[in-house]
Amino acid sequence: MLWFGLNNNKMNKSNVKKINLKNKFDKISKYWSPKIIGELNNYQFKIAKFKDDFIRHNHPETDEAFIVIEGEIYIDFDDKTEIITAGEMIVVPKGVYHKPYSKKEAKVLMIEPRGTVNTGEIVNELTLSNENWI
Amino acid sequence: MLWFGLNNNKMNKSNVKKINLKNKFDKISKYWSPKIIGELNNYQFKIAKFKDDFIRHNHPETDEAFIVIEGEIYIDFDDKTEIITAGEMIVVPKGVYHKPYSKKEAKVLMIEPRGTVNTGEIVNELTLSNENWI
Repeated sequence: MLWFGLNNNKMNKSNVKKINLKNKFDKISKYWSPKIIGELNNYQFKIAKFKDDFIRHNHPETDEAFIVIEGEIYIDFDDKTEIITAGEMIVVPKGVYHKPYSKKEAKVLMIEPRGTVNTGEIVNELTLSNENWI
Repeated sequence: MLWFGLNNNKMNKSNVKKINLKNKFDKISKYWSPKIIGELNNYQFKIAKFKDDFIRHNHPETDEAFIVIEGEIYIDFDDKTEIITAGEMIVVPKGVYHKPYSKKEAKVLMIEPRGTVNTGEIVNELTLSNENWI
């Protein structure tokens, strides 16, 4: 019975904790600096504050999702601009060039595979390492 | 130049459109009936309205993310209960038993691989087919 009890406890240990987005955003001050807040299989949830311009880039290997939590972001595609406000999301298909920007500070939740580089195929001073947990 | 123009247009066509979560939720009336609203590689974004009880189940092959958009949900794990409110999210690891429920109507965005069954390893009257787009 002791064995069963221990085993049962181990098997059912959920090791899971909710994530409060606001609390996580409060820990970020720098713009365009995504921080990892969770993982789903080999995908990561990242949050970032957007303000002013980012660079036009693409991710040749993966789609990328943006969920706007607060504020409003713009994404320039080569053929149009989409304005995504709080409560809206967009999935940018792999290989599609996009230039995100925001006129005022906006808070964004992103979902993409582990290892996705924020500046896509471009490496410059905005490029971040990929293990920034918050 | 004509050729270049056509090719350039084709190459840069973004074929991407934002998704308004509220508008999508407005199209749902049935509880516990996830609808697909978007895809990210082989993952799907699904929305559902939760109210009252769902069944305890697990997904042996995948983690599952819940982002609460409106209201408040409960998830009973075998060792604890988590209360997740609007602006919070949780990732349930693969194989972990969970029983979601909600005392009042709640609106939830879920992310999981294409083909994930809502009732996990259990098949019963709550089990849905997996191509319910909205």
